[in-house]
Amino acid sequence: MTIEKTIVAIAEQAKVASRKIAAADSEQKNRALALIAEKLKRSEETIKAENRKDLELAREKGMAPAMVDRLKITDATMAGMIKGLEAVAALPDPVGEVTNTETRPNGLMVSRVRIPLGVIAMIYESRPNVTVDAAALCLKAGNCAILRGGSEAFHSNMVLAGIISSALDESNLPEETVQVIPTRERDAVNVLLKQDELIDLVIPRGGEPLIRFVVENSSIPVLKHYKGVCHVYVDRSCDMDQAAKICLNAKTHRPGVCNAMETLLVHEATAARFLPNMVSRFQAEKVEIRGCEKTTDLVPGAKRADQNDWHAEYLDLVLSVKIVATMEEAMDHIARYGSSHTDVIVTDDYQRANVFVKNVASSMVGVNVSTRFNDGGELGLGAEIGISTSKLHAFGPMGLEELTTRKFVVLGRGQTRH
Amino acid sequence: MTIEKTIVAIAEQAKVASRKIAAADSEQKNRALALIAEKLKRSEETIKAENRKDLELAREKGMAPAMVDRLKITDATMAGMIKGLEAVAALPDPVGEVTNTETRPNGLMVSRVRIPLGVIAMIYESRPNVTVDAAALCLKAGNCAILRGGSEAFHSNMVLAGIISSALDESNLPEETVQVIPTRERDAVNVLLKQDELIDLVIPRGGEPLIRFVVENSSIPVLKHYKGVCHVYVDRSCDMDQAAKICLNAKTHRPGVCNAMETLLVHEATAARFLPNMVSRFQAEKVEIRGCEKTTDLVPGAKRADQNDWHAEYLDLVLSVKIVATMEEAMDHIARYGSSHTDVIVTDDYQRANVFVKNVASSMVGVNVSTRFNDGGELGLGAEIGISTSKLHAFGPMGLEELTTRKFVVLGRGQTRH
Repeated sequence: MTIEKTIVAIAEQAKVASRKIAAADSEQKNRALALIAEKLKRSEETIKAENRKDLELAREKGMAPAMVDRLKITDATMAGMIKGLEAVAALPDPVGEVTNTETRPNGLMVSRVRIPLGVIAMIYESRPNVTVDAAALCLKAGNCAILRGGSEAFHSNMVLAGIISSALDESNLPEETVQVIPTRERDAVNVLLKQDELIDLVIPRGGEPLIRFVVENSSIPVLKHYKGVCHVYVDRSCDMDQAAKICLNAKTHRPGVCNAMETLLVHEATAARFLPNMVSRFQAEKVEIRGCEKTTDLVPGAKRADQNDWHAEYLDLVLSVKIVATMEEAMDHIARYGSSHTDVIVTDDYQRANVFVKNVASSMVGVNVSTRFNDGGELGLGAEIGISTSKLHAFGPMGLEELTTRKFVVLGRGQTRH
Repeated sequence: MTIEKTIVAIAEQAKVASRKIAAADSEQKNRALALIAEKLKRSEETIKAENRKDLELAREKGMAPAMVDRLKITDATMAGMIKGLEAVAALPDPVGEVTNTETRPNGLMVSRVRIPLGVIAMIYESRPNVTVDAAALCLKAGNCAILRGGSEAFHSNMVLAGIISSALDESNLPEETVQVIPTRERDAVNVLLKQDELIDLVIPRGGEPLIRFVVENSSIPVLKHYKGVCHVYVDRSCDMDQAAKICLNAKTHRPGVCNAMETLLVHEATAARFLPNMVSRFQAEKVEIRGCEKTTDLVPGAKRADQNDWHAEYLDLVLSVKIVATMEEAMDHIARYGSSHTDVIVTDDYQRANVFVKNVASSMVGVNVSTRFNDGGELGLGAEIGISTSKLHAFGPMGLEELTTRKFVVLGRGQTRH
């Protein structure tokens, strides 16, 4: 079979299966999730053996150690996948929820009811645990998943897919509810991205080049997660200790993730009291500071930031710092250089907090909190399949609800339109 | 200026203006809508004079009379635009609505707040009234609009744009809130569709080739409105008079629109009692019938349907008819040939109605109603900017709410993440 035929056949099977999984009740889906967890436990040795094949190939190809780490299925990875399945099973099922009801003047009873999206394709990096996490979330929301992980995780993903499908089958659900693309060929992705008649959504996860490629080549709607250029703005009047604690957490708790702070903005009335001490604390944590002119005047030894620094998502122990004359300047900076991901104000002025919240259009706008809280679990969504930085459909963390849509259900007694 | 520079400049101005219009309060936006209406009334002669230029050119180019009709700004068109502006001003403002609030175990107060999408581009046919309708809806939901109507409506759209912008300016809102692309060059659309850093959404309205072109060439998210292949399924047990009334309304009330019935499915237990009389009534209304084999056996003289008929959106007085052995066969037919737009069951069996409602995943699923009710006004959205046939973001009619997204607002007291 050509690649094109293989991919089209997979998408067609998913489309057929999507009607069945959409109609499955919560209990049946939860039983399947539990069975997947059980089978994963029982197959630990097989999974690790397949994973070792991937690891050997990756090392032969000279993969960077950090990448090998993400590829490796450890005991902790196994436990994480199983815990994830249990957590998703415990979440409320969004399918069938009635979000609005209204009786129209002509007697029509109109309601809006949550239904699955249908078929979701995910394209992601070489992290086999994402295969299980994504499968669980798609399944719980009544969707079919077509999964395409990084080619370095091929053997791992194939064995996981087999386990998931056999658990689905034993739960009387279509085994095509979750399919992993059974080829490493790059062309498979090109073909996949054109199946807009069969696939309802593509979620790319990974580096910016991958996401850019998907956006440019997909005729299917894409939920994309570009970068997080997150800001903390320390206002003219605030609790300095609180500000320092928030900034330190936002930058150093996990510098490599999208909701870490990348730029610190400080009101000029606060800068002299706040910045020197703050910078020392950052430097004690090995954070490199790149400051505006005023910052480097105030904090000798700090490097000067250039234009690229304001746009940068460092994902590292580097921080750009800018002193602003007004809150408006801070908000303008965020609008110009930010990525609409997570932006926080630290202030004790309620009025100014409100102005900031109203005017900053990021997926999470915070007052007196760390940027690190922009996360599905922390914000109460239970689990997340990604964080959308585009505003359509979902903006910010995407949980089960974001894997559904709503239809209108209209009950009448023979009404016709005049 | 090259086309590319012109379009990028427009998109950049829109992006800047979008921050201001997003922060405008309802009263200010409503005043601007009222002023646009007032200025339209006062400029009726100028508008009609510009429209006449378009009409003359269109006739010279041999445009079909039906197209010329849609292009023409009549007294009724003027009244419709003004009524539309008043209706949109009267609708509740979705911006700022808090849809969820929750206090997390760590004390964080998390809410989700509606905000505008930002910058919306619309590409549509040569109907100048759409310029005003779209501008009004985008503005009310706090968005900037970049409008590109059919090139045949160029003079009409430019004069309308000028009036809208001057009203915005006099209302102390940015005149770039609504911009019409000031060139007829086709390349403008290609450039526009690549401005994903500046534009948040594209809505194409028009024929399938236009929509297909936009989907294939846009790197901006698209809300598309493909075709409506709508079904009425007459079940084995139902009120025959009600069924006939619904079918007649669904097919003949406005055959040229997307929510008209295109295929009638009839349970075989009902067919002999229902179809001959129903077909006579259709034929009295000049509806051409194309039936399956069982239908043509039952109704001599009816044409035989072929495979294309089941896929067809006739938008005309033509109807395909199929007799099915079971409700499952009807649902399978809808899943296979339908376009997930509007599908209705006529039945007096409550259980079977529920099964149909649960299993049919169309943007409107109806019980004992005409398909013609799938419309923003009829379903209570107030006004609509289109009907989405893709499931992402909006499925079905899109009103003001669908022109917004939601951000997370998180209020803390210094919380950090552990």
